[in-house]
Amino acid sequence: MTDFIKTRAAVAWAPNEPLKIEELDLMPPQKGEVLVRIVATGVCHTDAYTLSGKDSEGVFPCVLGHEGAGIVEAVGEGVTSVAVGDHVIPLYTAECGKCKFCLSGKTNLCSSVRETQGKGLMPDGTVRFFKDGQPIYHYMGCSTFAEYTVVAEVSLAKVQKEAPLEEICLLGCGVTTGMGAVINTAKAKSGDSIAIFGLGGIGLAAIIGARMIGARRIIGVDVNPEKFDMAKKLGATDCINPKDFDKPIQEVIVEMTDGGVDYSFECIGNVDVMRAALECCHKGWGESVIIGVAPAGAEIRTRPFQLVTGRVWRGSAFGGVKGRTQLPKIIQQYLDGEFALSDFITHTMPLEQINTAFDLMHQGKSIRSVIHY
Amino acid sequence: MTDFIKTRAAVAWAPNEPLKIEELDLMPPQKGEVLVRIVATGVCHTDAYTLSGKDSEGVFPCVLGHEGAGIVEAVGEGVTSVAVGDHVIPLYTAECGKCKFCLSGKTNLCSSVRETQGKGLMPDGTVRFFKDGQPIYHYMGCSTFAEYTVVAEVSLAKVQKEAPLEEICLLGCGVTTGMGAVINTAKAKSGDSIAIFGLGGIGLAAIIGARMIGARRIIGVDVNPEKFDMAKKLGATDCINPKDFDKPIQEVIVEMTDGGVDYSFECIGNVDVMRAALECCHKGWGESVIIGVAPAGAEIRTRPFQLVTGRVWRGSAFGGVKGRTQLPKIIQQYLDGEFALSDFITHTMPLEQINTAFDLMHQGKSIRSVIHY
Repeated sequence: MTDFIKTRAAVAWAPNEPLKIEELDLMPPQKGEVLVRIVATGVCHTDAYTLSGKDSEGVFPCVLGHEGAGIVEAVGEGVTSVAVGDHVIPLYTAECGKCKFCLSGKTNLCSSVRETQGKGLMPDGTVRFFKDGQPIYHYMGCSTFAEYTVVAEVSLAKVQKEAPLEEICLLGCGVTTGMGAVINTAKAKSGDSIAIFGLGGIGLAAIIGARMIGARRIIGVDVNPEKFDMAKKLGATDCINPKDFDKPIQEVIVEMTDGGVDYSFECIGNVDVMRAALECCHKGWGESVIIGVAPAGAEIRTRPFQLVTGRVWRGSAFGGVKGRTQLPKIIQQYLDGEFALSDFITHTMPLEQINTAFDLMHQGKSIRSVIHY
Repeated sequence: MTDFIKTRAAVAWAPNEPLKIEELDLMPPQKGEVLVRIVATGVCHTDAYTLSGKDSEGVFPCVLGHEGAGIVEAVGEGVTSVAVGDHVIPLYTAECGKCKFCLSGKTNLCSSVRETQGKGLMPDGTVRFFKDGQPIYHYMGCSTFAEYTVVAEVSLAKVQKEAPLEEICLLGCGVTTGMGAVINTAKAKSGDSIAIFGLGGIGLAAIIGARMIGARRIIGVDVNPEKFDMAKKLGATDCINPKDFDKPIQEVIVEMTDGGVDYSFECIGNVDVMRAALECCHKGWGESVIIGVAPAGAEIRTRPFQLVTGRVWRGSAFGGVKGRTQLPKIIQQYLDGEFALSDFITHTMPLEQINTAFDLMHQGKSIRSVIHY
């Protein structure tokens, strides 16, 4: 008989319902899997998106959460890259090092566990969470809204023990995504001008990335001017509100920058903003990076002339970062004081208050709430 | 009194009317300008597009033609880069070497004469062609449908005298555009897989570019299978007709190539084909380059997920080639036998038969007709 572990977890039983704290049965890690005790987890808009029922990959009931950090409690057969006691960050973008994608050297979109992960399953096609014998699905290969979770070895970055898990959990998604889009995906350089659309957690992290690479000008764009103080604190040189202008914001930015920016980043998930972000780029070389996740079915559009005259449209997932090999380097930068994470954490709370974290996010009152177990 | 030169020219008096052969008065080259005797010119779809009246930059009456080659007959004040007797190719994409764009090192889209060129004027805001005292406008800074034309010095590439003008005129537009998009814009490399949509002159030139860089697989796509023989002769490894499949052509290509191509090129100007070209690219790294000119107002569209999962959408004008510095290198490759131009020239004719060249093009019966003066 399998010896189940008891774990507290916030279960999403159905779309659009509050999460419910449950005691679940967790099957021990199988071959190639790792049991992780989650110490802290951020609550991200993507969790809310899936909870809303709009995510075609959302499977209910499930344990959401994908921005966590924790400690290895046990390893399954064949696991060699982490050991009990290691500090780890679960990765929704795995890194197997062996698939066509990993071997290409051109992308972080590892395909090793992609198919099962999208169905809420472990790589062997089954689940580890149960409630009264009923299977509870996984989420993004992480399910960090549980005190204990089981994660595939390829989906775990081993990190420095001196880094506080209560802060570096944010590197499991939002902060890495924004910083990485600027540094890894766009490869922006010192002296570049940069526009960042949307000043939530991702946008603020993009500002940090822009500051780290030495951008000359960092223009933050948001319809909520309450976000401007933090954006400026983190490095924005200008903050503008599209509502303050009677012409399209891309025209405003083109005028502000004598022709447009070198790079722009869409950190919202709004296809109209994606268009503005592309069209505010400089003719001849400006590149726009889509980070935000748009609603199902939404489409971006522009005149092809925008591209024929030298603009480039691309996207970024998890900041283009390969989690297992690159996250430790980012954490070293954090430990060396190159950037801070504390600014992002506007609220901390226990798991029991996780629905409050969702409420604060929906009300635009938080950058990140971090759950401490 | 100015000493006008008499020149034969094919004048576009009004949209959608046949060109009319006229004897025009041509003002001698002014400061920074050059008088060129055109020896040969190709007839390109862009000439037909402007003649149709759909080009917002089309100004009538004008002398069309932008794919020519000729010999310098006289130079205006201050001209130093070319001299009488030099062989030259007029450039619709100038290269001044001094503007923000030229100095950026990131683009070939020189801005020096852009504004006046778009209005059918020489850089000083006036015209050189007259008929009975009435001004006749210039076209794309070239107006090669005239035996003699006046071109800005920054719009002239000096080329090797040993290269036959009757062939290298095609490097003034189509062939450079297609080859350059593969080699310069996409920077495709040996071993890459490439899909080329549209097997007219541009698409065939893209095939040549793909062959030159050592592409592993070159997939030609066209709804007219009569174009497949030439495509295969030039290097296509596969030719497919979207009409032969009952699913979208992007899905067919993704299946043919185990996930999609490394690069794709749209050589038609159809926004639906531009979408297919993007979506047949490989997740994680595939890049699609738009070369074709779409009708005014037409928009490209796709789901942003296509970009977030690693595809890149860009465009190319004149193959990203800086005419004055790079065309001589391309002509050297031609002289060295790295590619041939004769395959492109399906018809030759005197200026008097230029309307036949348009007819052949509209009927899909020519790759290029070349006018010999």
